[in-house]
Amino acid sequence: MAGNEKTAVQPTRMQDFPAWYQEVIRVADLAEHAPVRGCMIIKPYGYALWENTRNWFDKEFQKRGVQNAYFPLFIPLSFLQREAEHVAGFAKEVAVVTHSRLVMSEGGLVPADPLEEPLIVRPTSEMIIGDSFAKWIQSHRDLPLKINQWANVVRWEMRPRLFLRTSEFLWQEGHTAHASGDEARATALEMLEVYREFAEEVLAIPVFAGRKTESEKFPGAETTYTLEAIMQDGKALQLCTSHYMGTNFAQAQSIRFQDADENLSFAHTTSWGLTTRTIGAAIMVHGDDNGVRFPPKIAPIQVMIIPFLLGKEEDGAVLDAARALLQVLSGTSYFEGPVRVRLDEREMRAGDKSWDAVKKGIPIRIEVGARDLQEKRIPVYLRNREKRDVIYFPDNETLAGKLSSLLEEIHADLYQRAVSYREKYAVIASDVSDIEQIFKVEGFPNPFVLAPYKEDRNFEEVIRTQFGVTIRCILHKNLPLSLNSTNNRSGDREQAIFARSY
Amino acid sequence: MAGNEKTAVQPTRMQDFPAWYQEVIRVADLAEHAPVRGCMIIKPYGYALWENTRNWFDKEFQKRGVQNAYFPLFIPLSFLQREAEHVAGFAKEVAVVTHSRLVMSEGGLVPADPLEEPLIVRPTSEMIIGDSFAKWIQSHRDLPLKINQWANVVRWEMRPRLFLRTSEFLWQEGHTAHASGDEARATALEMLEVYREFAEEVLAIPVFAGRKTESEKFPGAETTYTLEAIMQDGKALQLCTSHYMGTNFAQAQSIRFQDADENLSFAHTTSWGLTTRTIGAAIMVHGDDNGVRFPPKIAPIQVMIIPFLLGKEEDGAVLDAARALLQVLSGTSYFEGPVRVRLDEREMRAGDKSWDAVKKGIPIRIEVGARDLQEKRIPVYLRNREKRDVIYFPDNETLAGKLSSLLEEIHADLYQRAVSYREKYAVIASDVSDIEQIFKVEGFPNPFVLAPYKEDRNFEEVIRTQFGVTIRCILHKNLPLSLNSTNNRSGDREQAIFARSY
Repeated sequence: MAGNEKTAVQPTRMQDFPAWYQEVIRVADLAEHAPVRGCMIIKPYGYALWENTRNWFDKEFQKRGVQNAYFPLFIPLSFLQREAEHVAGFAKEVAVVTHSRLVMSEGGLVPADPLEEPLIVRPTSEMIIGDSFAKWIQSHRDLPLKINQWANVVRWEMRPRLFLRTSEFLWQEGHTAHASGDEARATALEMLEVYREFAEEVLAIPVFAGRKTESEKFPGAETTYTLEAIMQDGKALQLCTSHYMGTNFAQAQSIRFQDADENLSFAHTTSWGLTTRTIGAAIMVHGDDNGVRFPPKIAPIQVMIIPFLLGKEEDGAVLDAARALLQVLSGTSYFEGPVRVRLDEREMRAGDKSWDAVKKGIPIRIEVGARDLQEKRIPVYLRNREKRDVIYFPDNETLAGKLSSLLEEIHADLYQRAVSYREKYAVIASDVSDIEQIFKVEGFPNPFVLAPYKEDRNFEEVIRTQFGVTIRCILHKNLPLSLNSTNNRSGDREQAIFARSY
Repeated sequence: MAGNEKTAVQPTRMQDFPAWYQEVIRVADLAEHAPVRGCMIIKPYGYALWENTRNWFDKEFQKRGVQNAYFPLFIPLSFLQREAEHVAGFAKEVAVVTHSRLVMSEGGLVPADPLEEPLIVRPTSEMIIGDSFAKWIQSHRDLPLKINQWANVVRWEMRPRLFLRTSEFLWQEGHTAHASGDEARATALEMLEVYREFAEEVLAIPVFAGRKTESEKFPGAETTYTLEAIMQDGKALQLCTSHYMGTNFAQAQSIRFQDADENLSFAHTTSWGLTTRTIGAAIMVHGDDNGVRFPPKIAPIQVMIIPFLLGKEEDGAVLDAARALLQVLSGTSYFEGPVRVRLDEREMRAGDKSWDAVKKGIPIRIEVGARDLQEKRIPVYLRNREKRDVIYFPDNETLAGKLSSLLEEIHADLYQRAVSYREKYAVIASDVSDIEQIFKVEGFPNPFVLAPYKEDRNFEEVIRTQFGVTIRCILHKNLPLSLNSTNNRSGDREQAIFARSY
């Protein structure tokens, strides 16, 4: 469907990227805006992406001794007074609960009983989990303590965008406490590596790993680690953060332990989180002008079987063949479970079903018609290809045997395309002085720049206010700078990413 | 540990049932009160029970075409005006969000910007999901629509009790819409049957299925179905509810569809939910004076291996044997997955580990010591038995082969004990006129009475105000009334359960 063929989605990415984003979400039936300011409704097809995310992480957490728990939605206002720096980062965007009852008045229902102390709806749970850590941790034998929570959090959002910026969003937040700073920092980095594996090996999104600058790091953190990815509009998206807190939070919250010699020390803590915005990232990295495209490991449906029924005599045989295929493919495995295969038996035109599967980004479509039965072939279409190329398989068993490797090829292809896009559009500057020149130019996609960098708070303020550009991270590993750069000084200096961002 | 042996928990159930309940939760490390009014912190061991609950239901939902989704935490006040009767049931206990920002003043942080319209934190999502249903449903082809949500909800609670009554709790809420009343009612009953299966076959809790009286039903429902169970203090606990709404909610929220003849009709809706209080039920039905006892299918840990190390030469061999056992048992299956087996390698006395496993209600303990190795035996203790009877197995493979049936026996035994308890303490009255006499007497356990009943709102008001007794449900199936009853008139009349309740 490249070139002059019609596209399913209008506008295209080139024409209007933000409008394209809204439209692919709508046609794929992933989510919609709620009647509540800034909030979203995650529809079943979108929510399945989040369930797959949760299931993947829960296995990884378990391997690492991280235990799930649940802490309250509400945080007393008094808790926020304890950590002024941390709170300043959230005070502008918290929802405040002030009343506990409604009564009917002339104009309708009105809030009745004021609470003794207002409560805030958690924008993050550092404060309430830290309070528990202080009670639970007495001795070095209680360490390390590794807790994770899957929860909803609220931060008012003035300009909501589905998945990317919503007042309420879903996330996991991990919180750990350790006896030593080295162990805590190693854990923050270990979790960053788990996120990298998820991004690259599940979402097929290539990432840059690094740390935030002093002015961009989490309030109260010693170091904030991050993964950054480039979207198809050239903007950066932060996929997660992992913070090493030092003893900053432990001091504010009295998280102390007795070591083997009975000395009392503050614990070293970490926290790390990943939100529903990763779904937005998968859409913006992989989607094309026909809709979303989901990498197989996260796709709610990996294979859709579509019977081509023409209201003729042969329809019965076609439907039987489609059902037999469903049976066979359901018994095959891919990644961490059985293949997620469905048969579309809805009463509508086969062509519409086919487009529906395209728009929903289902990796493999099998379109079975009477002619295919005659010719003893199973036509398979891959959503990662723009063209409607068809691969014919001779029988159900041959296809079932190849299904797993076919899905793996799709994953690898989507990942490689994203890498190619990044290589094509990421600009490599030999010196930070080029930054202003590069971002001065308006165009699509936005520039995404790597350059050697030494932290400079004033410079960051200038590019942020003048060009809306931030330093996304200082890279853990320098990338080879362009060979045609006349002044390659990367050897002895760290590299940073400069970009506009979500 | 029956009779004169010491018990792990003080007070005992007989001495003070509510205090016993708090204490078994504390020693099993399941949950604790949060520093926020009426809220709880669900600790990892308690949260695992909820994760197992969710995993079981998700499979059942999927089989029935119920899809998970996520709706906003907040509901605009204006939505509540639409359904006055429904809202009256919640107005007294809703949390109201009135402000969107905090600012620092002299006295500390204070709420800053008032919202244009106050929001309530969902006490249930009928109103917000109904609003979506109205948009999503156009034609009979969009029906049935079956949506479920796993979420946190808030209803202020003045006298909180862990799991049983907390201001914030976790639940699943299912919402469906149908073209016909028959289909909707059948769905409400089908979900009640799913809950029954969960109660009896997973939680090992025998239940009574029935419907609520007019005065006890959900505000706005046509019929409320329920499962009721007897706790060890004789009180009843409602395990779930399933509501057939008729077209009441559809009318309030304009959920309409065009039928095949293009006539516009209101949809028939249902809703059904089960909360974290089922964990409280499992504790109160199965726990004994040594702690909680969890039926194997819900137990976070099904088998705990405890090496008896004595600081001697043989310790290495004992630990090796324990690890080999862990390896073998991990490879076996029970119910819907691999056996959840753990090895307790903590540095503490083996006897303390053993008591810890008892208090945590782990169904099977394997206590391996040097002497057992010598005698080539594996000592297995079952938590469902009060006595420390031991079953010896000759080797790992024999035990592994028997593990699944051993766990199944434990389930059956716990279920049978609960049935026996119910048969022993449930009183059968031949006529409703006996009710007042029965509840007049103070004692432990509380009376739990079955009697023939014809709905009478005045009578319900009398027993509620005078004795704190409610009608838990009108039974779907009459039970045979006591043979020594002089006046058995059950044949032509419905039976109801009269009890004090949680």
